[in-house]
Amino acid sequence: MKYFKESVETMPRKALEKLQIEKMRSMLRQIYGRNRFYTDKLSAVGVHPESFHTLGDLKRLPLTEKIELVQAQSDILPFGSNTTFEESAYHRFHQTSGTTGTPLRVLDTPDSWDWWGDCWGFVLAGAGLTKNDRLFIPFSFGPFIGFWAAVEGARKINALMIPGGGRDTLQRLHLMKELGTTAMCCTPTYALRLAEVAQESGFDLNKIPLKTIINAGEPGANIPATKARIELVWNAKCYDHAGASEIGAHSFECELQPNGTHITESEFIVEVLNPETLEPVPAGEQGELVITNLGRIGYPVIRYRSGDLVILNEQACACGRSFARFEGGVLGRTDDMVVVRGINVFPSAVENLVRRCETVEEFRITVSTNNEMGNLSIELELSKNANPDSARKTVDQAIQNELSLRPEITLVPYGSLPRFEMKAKRFHLKDN
Amino acid sequence: MKYFKESVETMPRKALEKLQIEKMRSMLRQIYGRNRFYTDKLSAVGVHPESFHTLGDLKRLPLTEKIELVQAQSDILPFGSNTTFEESAYHRFHQTSGTTGTPLRVLDTPDSWDWWGDCWGFVLAGAGLTKNDRLFIPFSFGPFIGFWAAVEGARKINALMIPGGGRDTLQRLHLMKELGTTAMCCTPTYALRLAEVAQESGFDLNKIPLKTIINAGEPGANIPATKARIELVWNAKCYDHAGASEIGAHSFECELQPNGTHITESEFIVEVLNPETLEPVPAGEQGELVITNLGRIGYPVIRYRSGDLVILNEQACACGRSFARFEGGVLGRTDDMVVVRGINVFPSAVENLVRRCETVEEFRITVSTNNEMGNLSIELELSKNANPDSARKTVDQAIQNELSLRPEITLVPYGSLPRFEMKAKRFHLKDN
Repeated sequence: MKYFKESVETMPRKALEKLQIEKMRSMLRQIYGRNRFYTDKLSAVGVHPESFHTLGDLKRLPLTEKIELVQAQSDILPFGSNTTFEESAYHRFHQTSGTTGTPLRVLDTPDSWDWWGDCWGFVLAGAGLTKNDRLFIPFSFGPFIGFWAAVEGARKINALMIPGGGRDTLQRLHLMKELGTTAMCCTPTYALRLAEVAQESGFDLNKIPLKTIINAGEPGANIPATKARIELVWNAKCYDHAGASEIGAHSFECELQPNGTHITESEFIVEVLNPETLEPVPAGEQGELVITNLGRIGYPVIRYRSGDLVILNEQACACGRSFARFEGGVLGRTDDMVVVRGINVFPSAVENLVRRCETVEEFRITVSTNNEMGNLSIELELSKNANPDSARKTVDQAIQNELSLRPEITLVPYGSLPRFEMKAKRFHLKDN
Repeated sequence: MKYFKESVETMPRKALEKLQIEKMRSMLRQIYGRNRFYTDKLSAVGVHPESFHTLGDLKRLPLTEKIELVQAQSDILPFGSNTTFEESAYHRFHQTSGTTGTPLRVLDTPDSWDWWGDCWGFVLAGAGLTKNDRLFIPFSFGPFIGFWAAVEGARKINALMIPGGGRDTLQRLHLMKELGTTAMCCTPTYALRLAEVAQESGFDLNKIPLKTIINAGEPGANIPATKARIELVWNAKCYDHAGASEIGAHSFECELQPNGTHITESEFIVEVLNPETLEPVPAGEQGELVITNLGRIGYPVIRYRSGDLVILNEQACACGRSFARFEGGVLGRTDDMVVVRGINVFPSAVENLVRRCETVEEFRITVSTNNEMGNLSIELELSKNANPDSARKTVDQAIQNELSLRPEITLVPYGSLPRFEMKAKRFHLKDN
C-alpha cells in the first residue's frame, strides 16, 4: 500500500485527534487579532483561542457560510477581509469558477500553497502514483485552483508532470501516446470526451499505457455507472477526489476503493450536520459536510458549510489508513435537490441511471416547473451504431424503477449537445 | 537597485569566472559516464572532466547543434539520450513549440526546475518586481516552458502570481483591472493585442495600475519601435528577456535599461562565434551566441549553437551588476536572414521600421523569391481613424531609407490579419 505520509495516515485515531486539536489551536492563535473576518466572528460569540481544548469545543465556534466569504470580499476589494497577513505575504491568486454569481477569490501564502501540494500528495499517492508515473494534466490552466494544485501534488511525489494545455483533444491523445502517459488527472466529463474523440478519429486508446485516472472538479468518479463507463473505455482504474477552492483538497480514494473517499483528517476537521437543524446527524446518516481546514492560515475556513452532502464512515479501511471516509464520496449538494412530483431528485442519481445505458454518449436533463407537479425531461445523444429504441427503453425503465418518475425522453442528433472540458452543466432548471 | 541575488550579481569578474569554472567542472563530473549524449561527445574529442581548468578550456569541448539534440531524442524515444539520470528523477516535461519540424522535448529534475525558477528570479527582480507586485500571466499553460518558468520566478520573489488563462482578451483586461495588476509577463505581440482589444471595446487601460511589462517568447521588447509602442499604449515600462526551452532563461534587462540585456553569467557561460568560421568574433562585433548552461545537470547543453545573433558588451553597467550584456538583446537569428536584391534583410529590422508608423495595428511581411531578385511585400492593417496615404508613405520611406529596398505595400481591412497569443508569425517566405 502506498502512502504519502505513512505515519500520519496510519496514526491511531486518538493521536490523530490530538494532532487536529494542536493544529486548530495553533491556527486560532495565528488568526485571532490578525484576520479581521474571523476575529470578528470569534469575538461575536466570545470564543478566545486559548479556550479551545477538545474537538467538542468545535460546536462553540460559529459556522461560516459561503455568502459571508463573498461579502467579506466585497467589503474590502479586491481580496477581502478573510486574510491573516499583509498582502505581500501571499503569492498565489485563484478564484472559483463563478458560474453562479460573484466568483470567490482566494489567496495563498507560500506555506499554504505548500499545504495544497501536500493535500494533493495524499490524493496522488492514494491512487498509487509514484515517481515512476508520467502524469498528464490536459487542461489549459486559468485561475481555477484544482489543476494547479495537482501540479504541486505531482511535485511532492516527484511524478513526471506533463501539461497538456493549449491544444485540441486529438492532439492531446497523440501527445499522451508519444510520451507513454501512465496517469491522468481531469474531470470525469473530459475523460469521457477524450474517449469519444478517440472513437471518432479511429485512435486506439490501448496505445496509451494509462493505468490510473484521477477525477476531480465535478462528481462522476463517485457515480457508479459513470465510473464504470470511464474504466471500461480507458481500461484503467478511476479514482475520485473532492475539494473546493475555498476549502482545500480534502478527500481521496485509496487503491482498495472501499466505496468511498478517505478524508485527509490530518489537514481537515469534518462534521456532518443536518442542514436544517444544524445538529450532528446520527452515525451513518446523510448530512451536510461542515469542514475546517488546518493548513491555510492565510485564508482559513472554520466550520464551513460546504453544501456537500456526505455520509461519514469511521470504520477501519483495509488500506491501513485511520482517516475516516465519505461513504460513496460527495453524494450531492444541498442546493442541487429538486422536487419533481413530490419526489426528491438529485442530479447525480439521475446521471447514474442515464449512464447505465452504454450507448448514451452525452445527455442533458431539464427540470421544468411550469406546472405544479414539475417535469423531468432528458435529451439523449447516442453513439453512432446504437439501437435508439433499446436505449430509450433502458433509460426510461431505470428512471421509472428507481425514481418512480416518468421522464420525457428525446433523442437528439449526435454531436448536438454541448461538450465540456471543465465543470459540466448537464442539469438545467426551467422556471416559467 | 533591486537584485535577486546581490552578491552573485555584483561579484567581481574574476570571482564570477571562478564560479563558472567550478560549476562547469562540477557539471562535467556529474554528467560524464552518466549522460550518454555528452559522454559520447566528450569522449570523441578525448576531453575528461578533470582536464577542465580554465574558461580557455572551453574551446576544447565540442559544439552542440539543435539537430543533434533532436536526433538524440529520436534515438531513444520518447525522451532521448541527453539525460543524466534515470527517468524517475525528472518531474517536469516541456517541449519547444515545434513550428519548424519535430518539437524538442526537455525534462527537468526538481533541482533543475528550481534553477529555472532562479533564472526567472533574476529576470523579475531585474525589472524591479518585488513581493508587493501583482503579476498577471495571461496565457493558457501548455507544454511551452516559458510561462511555467515565470510562475516559478514569481514564487522565488514572492510576487502575487495571477494566472489569466482560460478566458478571452477582454475578460483578461477586466480581471487585471479588478485585481489591481501592477505587472504582466507576456509576448510583445500579446501586450499590443490586449491594448488593441481595449481600444475596440472602450476599455480604459489607465484603470489598470500596470507599471511593468516583461516581454518574453519572441523578439519585440528589443525592437526599439515595438518597445516604444508597447510603452506608449500601456503607459508602463517594458523589459526584454530572452531564453529558450533547450537552454534556459539566460538574459534580462535591469531597471536602467542600458540598451541591452544582462546575461545571467552565474548560470550560463556565453561565447560569441562567427557562425561560419566558428572562431570568436572581435569584441563588439555581431556573432552567433554559443551558450553553456550550468544548472541543468539533468538536461545539460554545452557550447550550444543557439542560432541567436548577439553582440557582447562587457562594459560595466551603472546598475552595479558585473554580468556582461547583449547589446540590443538578441538581434536576430542566423537562419532568419533573407537576401532580397542583394540586401541582407532581418525580420526584426523590418518590424522596427514598420512599427515606426503609429497607426499600423498589425502587419505581415512576405518575401517571395519567384524571380531572381526577390520581392519584399508588406500588408498593413491600420487603426480605424488612420490616414492611409500617410501610413503607406511613412512605411515606404522608412524601408527605402534604411534598407534601400522598395517594398510592395498593400493596405488590408482592419481585422483581416491573424492575431497571435503566443509566438507571432508575421514574416513569410514564398518560394515559387
